[in-house]
Amino acid sequence: MVANVLEVNPERLWESLERSAEIGRFRDVGLRRLALSAEDKQMRDLFVEWAKTAGCTVEIDRLGNIFARRPGTDPSLPPVAIGSHLDTQICGGRYDGILGVLCGLEVVRTLNDRGLQTRRGIEVICWTNEEGARFNPPMMGSMAFAGVLPLESVLATTDDAGITVEQALDEIGYAGPAPVGRTFDAYLELHIEQAPVLDREGCDVGIVVGGYKTQALRLTINGDTGHAGGTPMAQRRNALVGAGYVIAAVNDIGLAFAADEGRTTTTRIESFPNLAGTYAEQVKLTIDFRHIDADRFKAMRAEVDAAIAAAAKKANVEIEVAEGWSWGSELFAPECIELLKSTAKELGLPYREMRSQAGHDAYAVATMAPTAMIFTPCFEGISHNVNEAIELTRSVPGANLLLNAAVTRANR
Amino acid sequence: MVANVLEVNPERLWESLERSAEIGRFRDVGLRRLALSAEDKQMRDLFVEWAKTAGCTVEIDRLGNIFARRPGTDPSLPPVAIGSHLDTQICGGRYDGILGVLCGLEVVRTLNDRGLQTRRGIEVICWTNEEGARFNPPMMGSMAFAGVLPLESVLATTDDAGITVEQALDEIGYAGPAPVGRTFDAYLELHIEQAPVLDREGCDVGIVVGGYKTQALRLTINGDTGHAGGTPMAQRRNALVGAGYVIAAVNDIGLAFAADEGRTTTTRIESFPNLAGTYAEQVKLTIDFRHIDADRFKAMRAEVDAAIAAAAKKANVEIEVAEGWSWGSELFAPECIELLKSTAKELGLPYREMRSQAGHDAYAVATMAPTAMIFTPCFEGISHNVNEAIELTRSVPGANLLLNAAVTRANR
Repeated sequence: MVANVLEVNPERLWESLERSAEIGRFRDVGLRRLALSAEDKQMRDLFVEWAKTAGCTVEIDRLGNIFARRPGTDPSLPPVAIGSHLDTQICGGRYDGILGVLCGLEVVRTLNDRGLQTRRGIEVICWTNEEGARFNPPMMGSMAFAGVLPLESVLATTDDAGITVEQALDEIGYAGPAPVGRTFDAYLELHIEQAPVLDREGCDVGIVVGGYKTQALRLTINGDTGHAGGTPMAQRRNALVGAGYVIAAVNDIGLAFAADEGRTTTTRIESFPNLAGTYAEQVKLTIDFRHIDADRFKAMRAEVDAAIAAAAKKANVEIEVAEGWSWGSELFAPECIELLKSTAKELGLPYREMRSQAGHDAYAVATMAPTAMIFTPCFEGISHNVNEAIELTRSVPGANLLLNAAVTRANR
Repeated sequence: MVANVLEVNPERLWESLERSAEIGRFRDVGLRRLALSAEDKQMRDLFVEWAKTAGCTVEIDRLGNIFARRPGTDPSLPPVAIGSHLDTQICGGRYDGILGVLCGLEVVRTLNDRGLQTRRGIEVICWTNEEGARFNPPMMGSMAFAGVLPLESVLATTDDAGITVEQALDEIGYAGPAPVGRTFDAYLELHIEQAPVLDREGCDVGIVVGGYKTQALRLTINGDTGHAGGTPMAQRRNALVGAGYVIAAVNDIGLAFAADEGRTTTTRIESFPNLAGTYAEQVKLTIDFRHIDADRFKAMRAEVDAAIAAAAKKANVEIEVAEGWSWGSELFAPECIELLKSTAKELGLPYREMRSQAGHDAYAVATMAPTAMIFTPCFEGISHNVNEAIELTRSVPGANLLLNAAVTRANR
């Protein structure tokens, strides 16, 4: 189906990544480019400039999602979309999300180099606030776009300083006029793996068929505040002690399931009143657990639930459990997975099928358009860390797969 | 030695406590009257007004410590001081500190009622920021007064909003001209016990000979941030997991030492970056442990140290341990303890000797003047909690002991 095998320009791709790596540089080698910050604006401006220079029309919706379209020969047809994000974690790397957007741009630039037209347009998308580091939840732009989250509640979400998403969008000039929601013929996303499978196996291309079963739990641990000195141990209801028992037990569960790649994580903790002379009356704790296998996932859930109950009993506190985000049961579209597999074969690229351990914008878009993802290796799977690293030569095969698959789909 | 047995006016004492309980009322029955806040100013103003009405001269030092003096017949002699604090915890009760200051005022008022003069003056003191709930460390006013903490560093201490103690003192008009430091003939402090010993034993008077051996540790747990999804369990260095293992183990140690009234507490925790998708690279955790017996205290310390090392190993993190506040090895002055014991006997008051499990301003003052403390019962030992409660009839014996002991000492 691929008329001519196309190849991206690796040097240009790298140069674009290096330009991006200057905007919000953090701890020498990393990035702190929080969603809708001044740095994010600077990067968005650069992306828009690049897209326009490459002949794209640029539209921005009310959520700040940016759509850069290279027109097709038949404007009546929905485009093939390629997207990811340009925001980073607080101590983030240079490639998480960014590689996907810039590979999308590289698809457009390569087609320009070759003077090729496609039947359907190709739309390169930057989604707003994938990381959730400033505004929670993550994947906010794509989720509201896909109708998974209500638009108004997303716009009203505040950061720690009380600034809403809506205000932050206004401030950087990225509250656009385009309607939220549009039609795609297909959606493809390239992303660094953020796990070490490809790196360890020496494989450069992962074709992602879906996600690990993942469940976040938001725990509210209610005790009673009291004096750190005189209160007898048996009388205490220290919410932080409840949290400690949960954290220890949940990590033990993760270690017990590590052999077949189960994961547990305790991440965010907030304690009140959080003073040295007084123990805590309330602690909020976020945990999550993930497994590739649905049955093992169920077993983890049972162990986590039991650990929470045991911690509550031992610490003499009450623990309310609210289910947070979950994903991973969905599969990507067979037609898109097949397209990636057949294209990889035609390009002679070794690949492995895999499931994503992280959340991605593609999960939201998959609810409204045929979707699949390409993973490329990152050094030892290190991510959400300034030391995130890739090798260009191991990233180019994935970029070429994206290019050729997108063109094939755009010409159908 | 007591010429005439004197008795406080219980109704007047209770009325003053009720007036205080209106200033900064919190959750119906408690108080939130943080040091140097508007509420603290209001309470200070009321105390100063009461003291002046009772014929006292009032001096305020640069730290906002208030000294209300009822003159003696020989102004050349150092006064007998009676003090405590009027600030509260964030979710505090009505009696912690407050009872001690208002009993001091009641001593003055009772002497006025009886038209009695004493050879030495009697000085009633309100110490600034005993609780440490807004500005850390606690017992700031008395410690700087006694030279245990440097004055300038105390004045430069900031709250969470970045306001310094110096600015906060200026704002409420309590940065006074009196020099920091003065001479006392003796210092007596009455305080609710903040532990349930007196309440459980049905004893109304505790004569405090010193403190529990107490040590706070400030832990800095250093890991490395990474992705909550893809990072293999074995590769993680989640600082929050290190904290969880410490919290669980330290509480287990407290439970193991509970039979002979050992205590461990984990109180304050701060995690970075504290985001849901990323695990923590650094957690700061405050713990403390206390025991009445020096050998058992040493055994606790050894177990705590071992638990920290084990947690660091299991979580694959580094834990730096800095020693925080410690107290309890000091004994109060035998002459003051004897004065309280002999006075109690003369008054026919049953009492028990005891050690304090909490920190008090008296610990700082004890470094510069002969000092002892009186404890009165509080319901089930509940303190640093809005449900802190006392019975007036069980508080009056301690107040009478304070009154008669102070007069005896002031007349020597």
